[in-house]
Amino acid sequence: MSGRLCFTSDYTRGAHPNIIKRMTETNSEQSPGYGTDEICASAKERIRKACGCAQAAVEFLIGGTQTNAVVIDSLLRIYQGVIAADTGHISVHEAGAIEYGGHKVLTLPHHNGKISAEDVEQYLEDYDQDESHEHMVMPGMVYLSQPTEYGTLYSKEELTAFRSVCDKYSIDLYVDGARLAYALACLENDVTLQDLAQLCDVFYIGGTKCGALLGEAVVIPDPDKIPHFFTIIKQHGALLAKGRLLGIQFDELFRDDLYLHIGKPAIKAATAIKAALAQKGYRLCYDSPTNQTFCIMENEKLERLGQKVEYGFWEKYDADHTVIRFATDWATSEEETEELIRIL
Amino acid sequence: MSGRLCFTSDYTRGAHPNIIKRMTETNSEQSPGYGTDEICASAKERIRKACGCAQAAVEFLIGGTQTNAVVIDSLLRIYQGVIAADTGHISVHEAGAIEYGGHKVLTLPHHNGKISAEDVEQYLEDYDQDESHEHMVMPGMVYLSQPTEYGTLYSKEELTAFRSVCDKYSIDLYVDGARLAYALACLENDVTLQDLAQLCDVFYIGGTKCGALLGEAVVIPDPDKIPHFFTIIKQHGALLAKGRLLGIQFDELFRDDLYLHIGKPAIKAATAIKAALAQKGYRLCYDSPTNQTFCIMENEKLERLGQKVEYGFWEKYDADHTVIRFATDWATSEEETEELIRIL
Amino acid sequence: MSGRLCFTSDYTRGAHPNIIKRMTETNSEQSPGYGTDEICASAKERIRKACGCAQAAVEFLIGGTQTNAVVIDSLLRIYQGVIAADTGHISVHEAGAIEYGGHKVLTLPHHNGKISAEDVEQYLEDYDQDESHEHMVMPGMVYLSQPTEYGTLYSKEELTAFRSVCDKYSIDLYVDGARLAYALACLENDVTLQDLAQLCDVFYIGGTKCGALLGEAVVIPDPDKIPHFFTIIKQHGALLAKGRLLGIQFDELFRDDLYLHIGKPAIKAATAIKAALAQKGYRLCYDSPTNQTFCIMENEKLERLGQKVEYGFWEKYDADHTVIRFATDWATSEEETEELIRIL
Amino acid sequence: MSGRLCFTSDYTRGAHPNIIKRMTETNSEQSPGYGTDEICASAKERIRKACGCAQAAVEFLIGGTQTNAVVIDSLLRIYQGVIAADTGHISVHEAGAIEYGGHKVLTLPHHNGKISAEDVEQYLEDYDQDESHEHMVMPGMVYLSQPTEYGTLYSKEELTAFRSVCDKYSIDLYVDGARLAYALACLENDVTLQDLAQLCDVFYIGGTKCGALLGEAVVIPDPDKIPHFFTIIKQHGALLAKGRLLGIQFDELFRDDLYLHIGKPAIKAATAIKAALAQKGYRLCYDSPTNQTFCIMENEKLERLGQKVEYGFWEKYDADHTVIRFATDWATSEEETEELIRIL
Repeated sequence: MSGRLCFTSDYTRGAHPNIIKRMTETNSEQSPGYGTDEICASAKERIRKACGCAQAAVEFLIGGTQTNAVVIDSLLRIYQGVIAADTGHISVHEAGAIEYGGHKVLTLPHHNGKISAEDVEQYLEDYDQDESHEHMVMPGMVYLSQPTEYGTLYSKEELTAFRSVCDKYSIDLYVDGARLAYALACLENDVTLQDLAQLCDVFYIGGTKCGALLGEAVVIPDPDKIPHFFTIIKQHGALLAKGRLLGIQFDELFRDDLYLHIGKPAIKAATAIKAALAQKGYRLCYDSPTNQTFCIMENEKLERLGQKVEYGFWEKYDADHTVIRFATDWATSEEETEELIRIL
Repeated sequence: MSGRLCFTSDYTRGAHPNIIKRMTETNSEQSPGYGTDEICASAKERIRKACGCAQAAVEFLIGGTQTNAVVIDSLLRIYQGVIAADTGHISVHEAGAIEYGGHKVLTLPHHNGKISAEDVEQYLEDYDQDESHEHMVMPGMVYLSQPTEYGTLYSKEELTAFRSVCDKYSIDLYVDGARLAYALACLENDVTLQDLAQLCDVFYIGGTKCGALLGEAVVIPDPDKIPHFFTIIKQHGALLAKGRLLGIQFDELFRDDLYLHIGKPAIKAATAIKAALAQKGYRLCYDSPTNQTFCIMENEKLERLGQKVEYGFWEKYDADHTVIRFATDWATSEEETEELIRIL
Repeated sequence: MSGRLCFTSDYTRGAHPNIIKRMTETNSEQSPGYGTDEICASAKERIRKACGCAQAAVEFLIGGTQTNAVVIDSLLRIYQGVIAADTGHISVHEAGAIEYGGHKVLTLPHHNGKISAEDVEQYLEDYDQDESHEHMVMPGMVYLSQPTEYGTLYSKEELTAFRSVCDKYSIDLYVDGARLAYALACLENDVTLQDLAQLCDVFYIGGTKCGALLGEAVVIPDPDKIPHFFTIIKQHGALLAKGRLLGIQFDELFRDDLYLHIGKPAIKAATAIKAALAQKGYRLCYDSPTNQTFCIMENEKLERLGQKVEYGFWEKYDADHTVIRFATDWATSEEETEELIRIL
Repeated sequence: MSGRLCFTSDYTRGAHPNIIKRMTETNSEQSPGYGTDEICASAKERIRKACGCAQAAVEFLIGGTQTNAVVIDSLLRIYQGVIAADTGHISVHEAGAIEYGGHKVLTLPHHNGKISAEDVEQYLEDYDQDESHEHMVMPGMVYLSQPTEYGTLYSKEELTAFRSVCDKYSIDLYVDGARLAYALACLENDVTLQDLAQLCDVFYIGGTKCGALLGEAVVIPDPDKIPHFFTIIKQHGALLAKGRLLGIQFDELFRDDLYLHIGKPAIKAATAIKAALAQKGYRLCYDSPTNQTFCIMENEKLERLGQKVEYGFWEKYDADHTVIRFATDWATSEEETEELIRIL
């Protein structure tokens, strides 16, 4: 790239070295296609164990938008929509992938990137009581991201409340874990993989942003929940011929519980950056304990900063200020962090 | 795998060693996402040069079904369908991905996996003359595969005839090159990359089956043909965050024209296998000069064969016979081929 | 129109006089919308009685293509397709409405417009045994038309065989009765409304071509078969605000069993026309006992004929001949028929 | 119905007597199908004249949701969405029909049921300036209703401002005129049919709620705007076989400019009701000059009221109050209005 420090996103680097090593070692082996190989089998088994869910179906997809589209399309009937925060990835940044599949995203106003079980319950109750609800999109599932797009976290108590509401109204709960490793590595987090397996109808464990080259692992604790998932994946153009490539990512990410701590360097770096920003008088946005740090900067400072650091543009704050993002990842080094702090 | 020889498909192995090497070397570098990095830029430039088409848009997608769905959806208006052989990949083996996008596949009977420009012209003329054609799906493009699903080839003359028909009826011509390297490596072939760039509205250069870990390169000679292709890719869940992974595949496949000869070992092996089969009295199906060999076997022989070789099941021939497939690839060794011939 | 006799189709006239009378009488009454009025309730009850199916759900839609699209979309899951004759209305003349809903029409070759239960069973067995069937569209239902697009009929024995195959493979059976009144009025027919209610998962009773101004009555013998059908209808733009208009059509068509004999004049006329054609040496196509008569004519005769009669163009037969259609309807008079026969 | 007064909606009655008369008179005539008959031709010509737009394409569809779905699907490319008020009919009460067609409804907060050209311009500018807008749904058109779902009106100045914004950003302007007759009959209104034809890319003239039995007339001032509209209508299940039924509605509604004043009795009645409500101390919502009157009622009063009048439930206001709607129509009599006022 540019010689500048790079904190734009958590998908700027390649993969964890173990993954590259495994890819190199197994490259000349022949294996059957479409995820039916032994490496995939091993990776699935490791994920089932990590989730404490021996019977779960596990399938590997390639990216987050694809995974959300395939899962949501699988869970909903044609007349149903998905409830999400108005800041949810599916609401804003998937170029209409959910609507392309025929489903409306039913948005609720976010609080720090989150919605509450109470808000969802109120929405469902209003829907039921609306005399013209048969003319409206029926809510069929709830979409959450853990951590959220703003780096915030749902607690186990909050997820349990969502589960209760979903049970009460017979709708599904789905968690998008694109950055799940950064939640799991976070002291503030009290939601384990086992909790997710117990509380969700479906969730996915993010690979792309958490040390893999590519790939997301969809976990369906009750495999009967989505019949013919393989064919749906194929129909959505989401089936990888050399599926073992995805198997390798997750077999390595779940060897010796690597996934549970791979996010720690990112959290450590983000914590240091947040402290430095606060100490230097910058205003932080959102109470984000994970690997993303959002900060309100004067526009005139941005130009100077940009000469030395690549950061993420988040949104215009006002005429004179901009919200920017520093994203750390599993491979952010202490040197990079220190250098960034010196520059700020 | 199993200790048996494996000739089931051309996507059983990893990637060409150059690709693995490049992935290893560049793994710790940071680069921008979604294919906007320098490696992708280099790969695109190499492909433009190889196609003799300096202004072409080139985009990297992940797999064949995905690519077909995205391209067809981009080219057609909602009321249009795509003409294809009834044996075309989009007709049979994409789990309805084209229909999922709202478009009908308008099938014509194949001859050795191919359709003819005359058949297409007749179809278009019949459509125009049908008094109720406004109640029917309007044909909006032609889909061909080169080589076809049966390993056969279109000649330059044949493709030129398709171009004329498409021009006459103002519809698009699209070529699926999932196995294009095996056509290019074939003596019988007279269609170059430059020819494809001149004759097609869109075509794709297959990576997955031709030495890459994954990836297909879509070439749009006139980039105005598909506005906002990036957003369509994203909408279809087909955008890779770490796009450089795809860039590496094609930057290596097109370094020093590797792609033009990478298929040669496969053709050499297939030629030897075909000769051996014929010599041993087996019946071959289709006049396939590329890397797939189709052969009618007695069912009782199959079991014995299966103990030593993994082959592809193609279809039931009759009560006592089965059509099987031997697929070779860019890495099939002379030893493997000789061993197979000994066993046959 | 033109002063010429008109035998082009069975939807050239308005409605049965009883319908117009009822519309006039009730025009100034106020009633609730969307089919929740008392006339619709009465019409539904009459249809349930005529079908011998007290618990059936009955819903009124507006036209045939719409009804097929809504019902098929309701019955299938996203990864499923519908089996139909290659001459089926959904295969050819609905402008891709089924594919627009995301579903492939899986065609079987027709025999006189019909397919057989044996063909369907073979198709389903082949699908099951195909090693790559997970990459293919799963058949989820069978579509038949009674009478067919060629005016032919399924017998009760044939429909019973379809039922068995559908049960064996756990897929649905759906019958399109756009011209059902002409089957019911036909001596050759042995399939009653009660039979349809017992043998089908869903079928529709055609109004538009059978004496109504517009409207088709969907019958779902087991109402749990399609949950939230009302919302699906609305989502498909198929819900009529002044639903009573459809209620009136069917309340009149099923008053005193009118629907069971309304087609008789059409059958009588068609029988006379067929006899006259045969007697005059014309070649008839298809063994159609219902209200459509298909006949192969020399092109040079067509021009003269066209000066006195409007007929339906069906298809080119060869360079010198054309297949044309004479359609009669519930209101075809003996005078019109005699006049046509004189001209032939 | 119930013996009670009925002010629930503007689609409770049949059609204007002229329509019923014409249907009766022409019932036994034979005419070609699908809107190609002479009555449709006459109706289209009358509409073109009333709109001062000799070259406009006019097509008749059946209902509002269907019309919106077909038009929006015709105007947008797959990657585009439609901007609408969050209270727009397409946003709330069409059961996801727009999303079923693959398009996102991009909502803006309403003001009295309206959005402003400034809000739209800001949205389009923000979209353009957002660095990740290629990952978002591209706005492709603006949807307005005239009058709005809350009975409010856009002025000619406001519509002209929308036109400017749409031109500036090269997107389309579409007006849903489901209740257009009630705008045209309103003193406060300064937007004529000719204005709509000059300012919109497409608009529709509502029939169902304005004196027709069913039907909406889509006007496309520049017919090249939507190629193959007929086939799109068919594909969406929206083509009526006996199209003359729709022709009759509009040939009568536009005979002697009936449509321009048919809404007057509704406006007169609504004005009287609003005055009475205000005089009796009820709180009115929205400044609605058309045929809908919204009023905040104490829940305990509602039960008593409901014994004598059928009104429309609109929404819960708070624990003790409800917003209800009184809708008048082209046939509301002075007696009905006086009786209602007595009861209030």
